[in-house]
Amino acid sequence: MEVDHLADERSKAQFDVEEMKIVWAGSRHAFQVSDRIARLVASDPAFQKDHRARLGRKELFKNTLRKAAYAWKRINELRLTEEEASRLRFFVDEPAFTDLHWGMFVPAIKGQGTEEQQQKWLPLAHKMQIIGCYAQTELGHGSNVQGLETTATFDPQTDEFIIHSPTLTSSKWWPGGLGKVATHGVIYARLLTNGQEHGVHGFIVQIRSLDDHLPLPGITVGDIGIKFGSGAYNTMDNGVLRFDQVRIPRNQMLMRVSQVTREGKVVQSDVPRQLVYGTMVFVRKTIVGDASNALSRAVCIATRYSAVRRQFGSQKGGLETQVIDYKTQQNRLFPLLASAYAFRVVGEWMEWLYTDVTQRLKANDFSTLPEVHACTAGLKSLTTSATADGIEECRKLCGGHGYLHSSGLPELFAVYVPACTYEGDNIVLLLQVARFLMKTVSQLGSGKKAVGTTAYMGRVEQLMQCRCDVQNAEDWLKPSIVMEAFEARATRMSVACARNLSKFGNQEEGFLELSADLVEVAVAHCQLIVVSKFIEKLQQDIPGKGVKNQLENLCSVYALNILHKHLGDFLSTGCITPMQASLANDQLRSLYSQVRPNAVALVDAFNYTDHFLSSILGRYDGNVYPKLYEDAWKDPLNDSIVPDGFHEYVQPILKQQLRNAKL
Amino acid sequence: MEVDHLADERSKAQFDVEEMKIVWAGSRHAFQVSDRIARLVASDPAFQKDHRARLGRKELFKNTLRKAAYAWKRINELRLTEEEASRLRFFVDEPAFTDLHWGMFVPAIKGQGTEEQQQKWLPLAHKMQIIGCYAQTELGHGSNVQGLETTATFDPQTDEFIIHSPTLTSSKWWPGGLGKVATHGVIYARLLTNGQEHGVHGFIVQIRSLDDHLPLPGITVGDIGIKFGSGAYNTMDNGVLRFDQVRIPRNQMLMRVSQVTREGKVVQSDVPRQLVYGTMVFVRKTIVGDASNALSRAVCIATRYSAVRRQFGSQKGGLETQVIDYKTQQNRLFPLLASAYAFRVVGEWMEWLYTDVTQRLKANDFSTLPEVHACTAGLKSLTTSATADGIEECRKLCGGHGYLHSSGLPELFAVYVPACTYEGDNIVLLLQVARFLMKTVSQLGSGKKAVGTTAYMGRVEQLMQCRCDVQNAEDWLKPSIVMEAFEARATRMSVACARNLSKFGNQEEGFLELSADLVEVAVAHCQLIVVSKFIEKLQQDIPGKGVKNQLENLCSVYALNILHKHLGDFLSTGCITPMQASLANDQLRSLYSQVRPNAVALVDAFNYTDHFLSSILGRYDGNVYPKLYEDAWKDPLNDSIVPDGFHEYVQPILKQQLRNAKL
Ligand SMILES: Cc1cc2nc3c(=O)[nH]c(=O)nc-3n(C[C@H](O)[C@H](O)[C@H](O)COP(=O)(O)OP(=O)(O)OC[C@H]3O[C@@H](n4cnc5c(N)ncnc54)[C@H](O)[C@@H]3O)c2cc1C
Ligand SMILES: Cc1cc2nc3c(=O)[nH]c(=O)nc-3n(C[C@H](O)[C@H](O)[C@H](O)COP(=O)(O)OP(=O)(O)OC[C@H]3O[C@@H](n4cnc5c(N)ncnc54)[C@H](O)[C@@H]3O)c2cc1C
Ligand SMILES: [Ca+2]
Repeated sequence: MEVDHLADERSKAQFDVEEMKIVWAGSRHAFQVSDRIARLVASDPAFQKDHRARLGRKELFKNTLRKAAYAWKRINELRLTEEEASRLRFFVDEPAFTDLHWGMFVPAIKGQGTEEQQQKWLPLAHKMQIIGCYAQTELGHGSNVQGLETTATFDPQTDEFIIHSPTLTSSKWWPGGLGKVATHGVIYARLLTNGQEHGVHGFIVQIRSLDDHLPLPGITVGDIGIKFGSGAYNTMDNGVLRFDQVRIPRNQMLMRVSQVTREGKVVQSDVPRQLVYGTMVFVRKTIVGDASNALSRAVCIATRYSAVRRQFGSQKGGLETQVIDYKTQQNRLFPLLASAYAFRVVGEWMEWLYTDVTQRLKANDFSTLPEVHACTAGLKSLTTSATADGIEECRKLCGGHGYLHSSGLPELFAVYVPACTYEGDNIVLLLQVARFLMKTVSQLGSGKKAVGTTAYMGRVEQLMQCRCDVQNAEDWLKPSIVMEAFEARATRMSVACARNLSKFGNQEEGFLELSADLVEVAVAHCQLIVVSKFIEKLQQDIPGKGVKNQLENLCSVYALNILHKHLGDFLSTGCITPMQASLANDQLRSLYSQVRPNAVALVDAFNYTDHFLSSILGRYDGNVYPKLYEDAWKDPLNDSIVPDGFHEYVQPILKQQLRNAKL
Repeated sequence: MEVDHLADERSKAQFDVEEMKIVWAGSRHAFQVSDRIARLVASDPAFQKDHRARLGRKELFKNTLRKAAYAWKRINELRLTEEEASRLRFFVDEPAFTDLHWGMFVPAIKGQGTEEQQQKWLPLAHKMQIIGCYAQTELGHGSNVQGLETTATFDPQTDEFIIHSPTLTSSKWWPGGLGKVATHGVIYARLLTNGQEHGVHGFIVQIRSLDDHLPLPGITVGDIGIKFGSGAYNTMDNGVLRFDQVRIPRNQMLMRVSQVTREGKVVQSDVPRQLVYGTMVFVRKTIVGDASNALSRAVCIATRYSAVRRQFGSQKGGLETQVIDYKTQQNRLFPLLASAYAFRVVGEWMEWLYTDVTQRLKANDFSTLPEVHACTAGLKSLTTSATADGIEECRKLCGGHGYLHSSGLPELFAVYVPACTYEGDNIVLLLQVARFLMKTVSQLGSGKKAVGTTAYMGRVEQLMQCRCDVQNAEDWLKPSIVMEAFEARATRMSVACARNLSKFGNQEEGFLELSADLVEVAVAHCQLIVVSKFIEKLQQDIPGKGVKNQLENLCSVYALNILHKHLGDFLSTGCITPMQASLANDQLRSLYSQVRPNAVALVDAFNYTDHFLSSILGRYDGNVYPKLYEDAWKDPLNDSIVPDGFHEYVQPILKQQLRNAKL
């Protein structure tokens, strides 16, 4: 065993790390599964990943195909459960066509396919006898799904749909797995029948031959090229696809909700359209969970390295100060640590929400759907934006060394950032939230009850008038005080915006004109949700020495940091006074001191293996410098002492012979 | 000629774009040089750069060597002036060893070398008969330069210094050009003579043989490996370097300020140490200029694409809304456009500051130095942080397509972000600014005059009490009102912080404890500098129809956006009221409407060629979709229809033959 350079830090922790691991994982069972599968992946050389950035695109992609096949083989050999298989894919940590197959193609068929369709396609998909992708976005349309241009025209003569790309901008563009691998796709297209348009629907379309993998007649398909980063998302074959009058049988339109009859008539089934919301909540809870995964990973690296890194402050030749001891470092790092935990808690709550929604849908109770839609849209936006920014902040917190690929942070950023764009552009989503909030406010008088995460608006009178009771810094630790401040802020901003909107003759115009303010209202509401879910979690019993206390500190850090960052909101609405703001700041500083001795243990609780982190700066043992040094020599540039090109290009300069050189 | 898809936008502009180009370039002469050199580079196939991400590290690096040699050849063939040569390197747009040679090695010798040393080394460097790097940072020390561990021990027996790396962490780490190319370096080491330590000094050390380019005896040197991004900064050979008792003649210590005599005594020359500040101001003005270059480039891409991209809002089958017409898009994009212009103006002012400082130094007037040091440190920090964040925001503003490498934005981000770290970590710099501000505040009573950019603090009494006069939205367009609000905010925050500091028994402890607040004070001060320099610029005569008016709008956008983002500062210090804040917001919205028709022309004024931008989304002609589509097919993954690895890894899954496959 090597020395643990962070042993000292670990011994300082004031709580039971093993119990915190269980809180983080969600349950003892989840922890055990994760722990076992993480070790399995980490110990298998086939899953090695630290050489990715040294591979060209083709090799990189081939290597991903190899891993995906190997993972599938192991899943079958070890007879892993669905839960275990999904953990395995998570720890393999490489975007691949399988993500879309399992994460989008299968759920789309489950959610939108009829019983027969499910019976036909799901067994094939489950055995991976077909590989599917999810092809919605086009070159010209992403956010505006209703604007998609691909057409699916019903031909009553042959009982088929003709799938066609009428314009260049109608080319499908972005779908993962489409570029090189998928045999099938759920393709979204504008339904045309009897000369009439019927909006956008999903169709199962075979793309490639199951014999020789060549594109079927009428289909042009390929990869859209390199994306952000060197490894990152380039292991994925995001694709481009054009249809030239491609025919598919009528029964390959996903017909759970709308159906096209043999005659070409569009009829609605008795299944409510709202069913799609179930899938949406499912996808969004996964995204929020992924946000806490990605952010915690970055925070784990930055925290460990900040404890290893020493700079300045040496007294009489002693050791220098660990940079984690600088308040500026804490002020940047600890709110991110707190956010990682906060998003974890919210993700867990969304599991509950999903179950709740599913049950209600079964009982034909759609009353909570608009609220759930707004809430999950907002949480997707909030958590992914904060995570993307947070990863980059963690990289900066590591100084120069954070810029090295081997820190793990550049690639983590590059692979993560599209989460702010896919499954709904974050700004477009916040505008939807705002629209819902404005509607909620406008109905407050009408007796319609604000439900779920907007329930607080039912107390609008109180919240418009309440005064914050904080008199000393510790008052800010009281959940009721924090809740009231956040609720009052969100309410007052909503009401103010609604008032400004009402000054416009045309509501829609007003909405467009004030949309920047509306986005801020949405953010205030979403931050309140996170704070309130964190606080609710702390009302439960949480076992383990000191565990709950740590979570309380993190919850307060999360809330008070937001309060500080958005102070303008709180002050301009009169929710708190400048003096109370200053007390909140004092309290935040003192919380940092309480988090400090526990910081390394709090990131240990994520239970990440060194394989998964793939960061020299984030190594569990803190043995950073020798490993950085070793790693440098592996770069291909170091294969030779004198670099390729020296004799042609540098020597002639040095020897002043450039004029004659051929370049 | 192809169609100009942005012609409509261009025809809407309300100002003389050609005159704005001159404002942007700084002068008619500067514009003409830039324009000519940019076309020269763009039209020369040897400078092609759009294939960079497809090259492996070795090929990439070799390609950079080729370009650098070719550039040098052209510079000589065309007898370019220094100004032209530097523009050429700028438009070649590829980090290379030459950046450090010209940007750090030569200036270090100029700034720190004696007359004789300059006479010996500069001609060699100017002809590139030697190639130099700047080797300060070590594995263990970056920010804390005084903590460097490399030693330079004087040996009186041989009249030499022995350069040595006593520990692993003393390995030089990061210097650009060091890894594979530099023959020499200015190496910073701890001077030891007669058993005594004399702090860190610079030494000219030969690293590689001028004959065969092999490292000299006792030297271990190599590249530190891959960094952020795929092309980006990986064209640079940032290096690692270890010395095993390497001897250099005594006259290779840079002795302009301190000298070591033949006997090994350290003596100070009559040249003041403050001279180093001259170089520092020079480097920082370059960095601020680079910030405006990088940010304007990102903004140019995002603005043009936002005018091309249409999404939602189609009425009766007409065209959809250009996304640049959405207020949320404007609220994210236009402040960045304004910042690009603001940083340009500040960079220009810093040219003046540099001249001023240089003249003062010559006249032995050091009075302004501490203020200049603080001001330039702060501006470096402010502009680089805002630019790094701004580039990523521009990428997000382009939706999914911004994530493509061919958008140009991912690589621009990856290559830019280290500017937040090198030449002083941005937080460490802000702490220095804060320290200076606290000193300034503490001396206000003592009769010592606050100078330069802190002069406003001389009016502390007034600024502590003044009340903002804004009564309607347009009042926020008055420079005097904006200035007062920003000055009052910075002053009140400084004074409040100073008061809090004075409550600590130990000032140093107080400084550490309150450092997060202190950073905010520094930011407030630096933002004021930018606003005030922009306003000063507008007091000059600026020719060209509508040009000044556009700049006034941008200046107001810059200031009012900051006011909104940092509203907590302004409200908590009572500088403005919530009602006035709300009026500022109204004014900001109306400014956006004024900027909107000019947006495309305002980025045209940067005069960037498509070669330089290297962004399909930012193409001058707006012909985005066909070009994205064409470009996709160039990816190596599209070389074959069935991808490498399909038969080994995917086929067996589809055919359920995985169990027998060897993976
Ligand atoms: C890595 C990655 C993987 C993907 N995988 C898939 C996949 O598997 N399948 C698939 O179908 N798609 C996929 N996509 C596509 C993705 O879903 C879209 O990119 C996403 O929906 C955003 O749409 P867009 O690109 O059209 O952005 P746009 O809508 O063009 O956004 C551009 C800008 O306009 C703004 N904007 C747009 N509309 C409005 C409005 N109404 N009001 C105010 N502002 C507005 C946005 O905020 C943004 O700033 C993927 C994308 C990426 C990056
Ligand atoms: C692309 C690139 C090129 C470079 N080129 C060169 C070159 O040519 N030559 C060369 O010599 N060097 C070079 N460098 C090195 C660069 O100068 C250093 O990385 C930089 O000075 C930052 O120092 P650091 O890495 O030690 O950061 P650290 O000081 O280790 O910073 C880590 C964290 O600690 C914090 N911190 C540190 N000290 C304090 C404090 N006192 N108070 C509060 N917080 C603190 C920082 O804010 C940061 O968050 C380069 C670096 C990069 C990334
Ligand atoms: Ca109260």
